[in-house]
Amino acid sequence: MHFKVAKKQLLDGLNIVSRAVSLNSPLPSLHGILLVVKEDYIQLTASDLDISIQVKIVNSEDSKLEVAETGDIILDSKYILDMIRKIDSDEVEVEIIDGLLTKISGASVNFEINGIKAENYPLIDFSKPDNTFYLKSDELKELISQTCFATSDKETRPVLTGLNLKAENGEMKCVATDSYRLAQKIMYMEDNDSFNITIPAKSLNEVAKVLNNDEEIEISISDKKVLFSMENVLIQTRLIEGSYPETSRLIPQNFNYELVVDARDILSAIDRASFIKNEGVSIIKMDISASEIVITSRSSEVGSVETITPVSYVGDNLSISFKGQYVYEAIRALNAFQIKIQFGGEMKPFIIKSVDNDEVLQLVLPIRTYA
Amino acid sequence: MHFKVAKKQLLDGLNIVSRAVSLNSPLPSLHGILLVVKEDYIQLTASDLDISIQVKIVNSEDSKLEVAETGDIILDSKYILDMIRKIDSDEVEVEIIDGLLTKISGASVNFEINGIKAENYPLIDFSKPDNTFYLKSDELKELISQTCFATSDKETRPVLTGLNLKAENGEMKCVATDSYRLAQKIMYMEDNDSFNITIPAKSLNEVAKVLNNDEEIEISISDKKVLFSMENVLIQTRLIEGSYPETSRLIPQNFNYELVVDARDILSAIDRASFIKNEGVSIIKMDISASEIVITSRSSEVGSVETITPVSYVGDNLSISFKGQYVYEAIRALNAFQIKIQFGGEMKPFIIKSVDNDEVLQLVLPIRTYA
Repeated sequence: MHFKVAKKQLLDGLNIVSRAVSLNSPLPSLHGILLVVKEDYIQLTASDLDISIQVKIVNSEDSKLEVAETGDIILDSKYILDMIRKIDSDEVEVEIIDGLLTKISGASVNFEINGIKAENYPLIDFSKPDNTFYLKSDELKELISQTCFATSDKETRPVLTGLNLKAENGEMKCVATDSYRLAQKIMYMEDNDSFNITIPAKSLNEVAKVLNNDEEIEISISDKKVLFSMENVLIQTRLIEGSYPETSRLIPQNFNYELVVDARDILSAIDRASFIKNEGVSIIKMDISASEIVITSRSSEVGSVETITPVSYVGDNLSISFKGQYVYEAIRALNAFQIKIQFGGEMKPFIIKSVDNDEVLQLVLPIRTYA
Repeated sequence: MHFKVAKKQLLDGLNIVSRAVSLNSPLPSLHGILLVVKEDYIQLTASDLDISIQVKIVNSEDSKLEVAETGDIILDSKYILDMIRKIDSDEVEVEIIDGLLTKISGASVNFEINGIKAENYPLIDFSKPDNTFYLKSDELKELISQTCFATSDKETRPVLTGLNLKAENGEMKCVATDSYRLAQKIMYMEDNDSFNITIPAKSLNEVAKVLNNDEEIEISISDKKVLFSMENVLIQTRLIEGSYPETSRLIPQNFNYELVVDARDILSAIDRASFIKNEGVSIIKMDISASEIVITSRSSEVGSVETITPVSYVGDNLSISFKGQYVYEAIRALNAFQIKIQFGGEMKPFIIKSVDNDEVLQLVLPIRTYA
């Protein structure tokens, strides 16, 4: 194995695949990155068996790839990243010089690292399932940022740690919930696909970090995995087994109160009060009337009161308490100028939407307080 | 107590004094900041009883201080910093509204916090000792950055956790050592002061963070404490008791080898090899000849070899090993373009200086290796 390649392209590729490396894996080969060198490309693979990433570097003006000898090896991910990061030239030369001893050369510095035989790497099947749809990278990024924060981080109900995608009749409903709040986005599909899968939020957050702007992502689904294919990057993740709860009946349809407010006003007010915590949680109380919203937070030692003005309010005066973080994240995810909050009552779940756009819905359960 | 002041000036003052707050103190009042409001100034004080900081805010165009009522109170440092940071206006109003309940008001937000009676704050004596000398803030900053890194972080010999200042005959010798390396700076004094004190490095590092450019610092010394007086800030720290070791006889005077090299070349080479560690320590070996310096680092899994060119070298070929971090920090502290390293032999301490300047000396002990 012997090749030269641009430092930047190799480092970018290693940074991408290293997101899938599992340093806790009992398989030592999975602490490494599998490097396969073919005549006209090199391929980097890493996996923790839940999520697997593969990057291909082909010859191009940027990559300046020159393969002198094909071959393959597994190199420790931390060391190889350190080495390539520290190489003192724009081009890197990588060569197996003796058995598994690999030499990495820059201008005046040479590194050496002992590799592991490539055949010790588990077989990762990157084959493409048949059921396929496409999203623009921006759409996929936005979907992830608008929903995944609402998934559960507790493993007691594994299915709630994922984002559920349910496609039927030309519509895909994407739902995340930790059972105290829920985020839902409706997307319209060109094909009449039908599927119902739950993707780990952790994997989707990794996908979001790797996405480039303005790329079309091919998303291929089986009942076991989902594969995201980009130009030179493949990411696949296992799906979460088990049936996702039917959430549509949790979403109320009738409301007695409707508040419209500038997103920035309410975000700043919640943010300002967020340092006040009771047992680690910031609880916010809103007293809403047609003329003002009084936002209060209080602990035994400190308190905060802030008054903001609604754009409009329909309904009787209402007093409602909630976890500040939940409403903050929900409103921020809408990325809207003005938002509409619809309430059913003091102890009923409420719904937050952008005033301009019905596709994303955020639901939050209020909290009972004894103030 | 009731006053208005510019948010920026109050926040700057709180940020400075909060460096001395000790959240681990058994005295609850020391978790807070003492706020004393007089007719024409306000004063902030914090202390962990080792280091104490006092900031005075007087009326000025910037501070816009307006005192309506004098008074004093202790406010929890974390909460008051959070509140002032989050206030939504350029001016802040602070008022005791009921007993110890203090109200902090911005434009649309009001915070409340329960304080502690000022009389519960321990008496901190900021009186100025007689023995006084002056340094420019830049000189003091440079002294701290060139020496304090070489102090010990172990409490087994407390005196080594401080910087020793010994003044006599118009000269002040400043020494820091952890007994594996040593940093020494000679400064020339206008007065013929004579003292021998050891200041905790931890306190000096806090002093360095607070120093403004182009200020003259008055440094006043007793046998118990040192007080740094700036225009509106006082910092004082206790001294470390015990006699400081006589270090001058540790510094060799005769050398058999002298290397001159570009600081940047050797710093980059050491930095590049620093990810290679044996039991957490990066050991660097240098093989020096008149034509090249070969810098090697090796662990059981990885290795690095880099060749740089000396500016000049006098002496036989030499092979020497050392802790990379020690030499890196020593060279960086010199802040020089070219450095001179003088060796006595493979296992003798070596000395690093700037080629342009004799005032700062860095000494490092080599390490025996079995390679």
